[in-house]
Amino acid sequence: MIYLDNAATTKPFDGVIRRMAHFYTEAYFNPSALYAPAFDTAKELEESRSYLLSALGGWGNLYFTSCATESNSWVFRCGIKNKRGNIVVSAGEHASVYENAQALISAGIDVRFVSLNADSTVNQDDFAQKVDADTTLVSVIHCSNETGAINDIKTLATLAKSKNGKLLFHADGVQAFGKMTVDCRDAGIDLYSISAHKIGGPKGVGALWVREGLHLSPFLIGGGQEKGLRSGTENVAGIAGFAEAFRLFSQIDKQKIAKLKNILKEALCALPYVSVNGSDTGSPFVLSVAVQGVKAEILQRKLAECGILVGLGSACASRLKKNRVLSAMGKNKEQIEGSVRLSFGAENVNTDGVAVGQQIADCIKSLHIQRR
Amino acid sequence: MIYLDNAATTKPFDGVIRRMAHFYTEAYFNPSALYAPAFDTAKELEESRSYLLSALGGWGNLYFTSCATESNSWVFRCGIKNKRGNIVVSAGEHASVYENAQALISAGIDVRFVSLNADSTVNQDDFAQKVDADTTLVSVIHCSNETGAINDIKTLATLAKSKNGKLLFHADGVQAFGKMTVDCRDAGIDLYSISAHKIGGPKGVGALWVREGLHLSPFLIGGGQEKGLRSGTENVAGIAGFAEAFRLFSQIDKQKIAKLKNILKEALCALPYVSVNGSDTGSPFVLSVAVQGVKAEILQRKLAECGILVGLGSACASRLKKNRVLSAMGKNKEQIEGSVRLSFGAENVNTDGVAVGQQIADCIKSLHIQRR
Repeated sequence: MIYLDNAATTKPFDGVIRRMAHFYTEAYFNPSALYAPAFDTAKELEESRSYLLSALGGWGNLYFTSCATESNSWVFRCGIKNKRGNIVVSAGEHASVYENAQALISAGIDVRFVSLNADSTVNQDDFAQKVDADTTLVSVIHCSNETGAINDIKTLATLAKSKNGKLLFHADGVQAFGKMTVDCRDAGIDLYSISAHKIGGPKGVGALWVREGLHLSPFLIGGGQEKGLRSGTENVAGIAGFAEAFRLFSQIDKQKIAKLKNILKEALCALPYVSVNGSDTGSPFVLSVAVQGVKAEILQRKLAECGILVGLGSACASRLKKNRVLSAMGKNKEQIEGSVRLSFGAENVNTDGVAVGQQIADCIKSLHIQRR
Repeated sequence: MIYLDNAATTKPFDGVIRRMAHFYTEAYFNPSALYAPAFDTAKELEESRSYLLSALGGWGNLYFTSCATESNSWVFRCGIKNKRGNIVVSAGEHASVYENAQALISAGIDVRFVSLNADSTVNQDDFAQKVDADTTLVSVIHCSNETGAINDIKTLATLAKSKNGKLLFHADGVQAFGKMTVDCRDAGIDLYSISAHKIGGPKGVGALWVREGLHLSPFLIGGGQEKGLRSGTENVAGIAGFAEAFRLFSQIDKQKIAKLKNILKEALCALPYVSVNGSDTGSPFVLSVAVQGVKAEILQRKLAECGILVGLGSACASRLKKNRVLSAMGKNKEQIEGSVRLSFGAENVNTDGVAVGQQIADCIKSLHIQRR
């Protein structure tokens, strides 16, 4: 089975599983306990934190959560102190940001959605209009989980802060972290969400990066873990697995992934009724294509029969009938209904793009012919 | 090393680690994805849920969280719809309930703490006085993490509901689940928090049981996982590990644990300056003792040198200088400062109580003599 839905699920690295096993069989102590083996576990926890923090530029604080949805919810729950002001989010956000924004609308807060360009990046003109001196929080996805389009968060943060130097700028970095260089300080942002299971780490671990000097309200209170901001016994194995996943993911040959994406894109776009959703400058890890006249679910099933697993877009939006992000890019109903997402992980470094591209193209062709 | 701090950390069962490995190496799919292998993963997730739900009486709903602190926070955040009414919690709660109660006080809500009996169970007379027709939420720990004292949640729930049939009754069942029979429906409660890592499961997984027909507000919103109530990609490996931990923990010979506790209690209480914190009818898994004239930290260190790890009480409260629960039981400063907690897990089934009891007693005696 060739797996091309890594934006939804990446198989954990063997090295990650081995690293985690250490915490199940030896370093299984509660890091808050007051005896030597627990101190060692606590030390390993802090080493994982430092390592992941250095991967984000080595400045600020990193707090571990159970997933990026929690990190994003934390931002939205704590980023809003009162009902004054407004919130600006892009129309291309993941469900965990989008639904939090919707909930704020229901609570009577002025939430403004910034339109997308045809390539699914944030429209900077519209962004400049929506953000103003009363904006308290801005949230922009760094790399689109639907198309791989990359937003220039540094430029957007600079623009936003020129309107109101005190607003909080949050970026959802789930599909960017590990796949491109991220320097939060340099980008001038305040908050950044990341997740382990998109880069070969385990499910159930995420983190929220918070810039130096920013005091966030706690998300979970109790035993005072994570400097009192996120109580609950630390998932030490998962956290160490996250750090190890980043280390291993950093080593994969991204040129090969970029080449794979390119070969697949050319093979599919050779068909006159196939077009790319997104831009050519997006992440090498995501390729979203629209197939005219073919239903994506049927193509997905057909490809699965041929041993190729692809996605239909965000698994977190799989329950919804319509793709909100493709819609915001201006795609029509037929394009949206015929869109599949191919996304790549470490296991695709040696995937034979030519052969797989041919197979996918053949499946598309056969469905297209059947339909006529 | 003999490990007697299992209320803080239980070593995961080998079977749990094997079960989790299946989800790292084979069933690593996102359960929300729309292809066959992901459906299989989703099915395994639901099997784990059904199994754990049946362990709680097989009625109602079980929603997975990242830890009991999250489950407890969910109850407190969603259990309070407005500022009318009052909240009643016992003085013997875990930090994750206690701190949420404190936060509500800060938010101007009438929170009433019920006093404890000398054995650390909830004082029923005081409980009957504090709960009234305006009470909206009651939270009582099922089994004390500090002393092992067991609260009669069925009687307390009946009493509370006789005052106001519409109030929510929550029990923190972290130290009870897997260690005694729990039937949430029979107990007449509404909400019950549990955690995997207290019964040989992994850290980073908890759950909230919710009675049939009770509509709770979501805790995390986004992709709509957990019936829309707790979004975020499911930690399938951890959840399956939780179910497997319950299965394996159920098989351990609890009579042997009860016997171990009894032997240790007798060995220690043979010393005239040692007394038990809590009651004789508490959980066989926890033994808290107060040693007069000896500082617990020093005793803990001495015991560690002899190869015996004991706790000083809740690891989640390890940063605090004073033990709030022992204090609420009426223990004086000297008793509190000299209290250690011995707690047992699966790995203690064959612990030689006579030998270990003798070793601990010898350590206590030597410290007591040194001090004179």
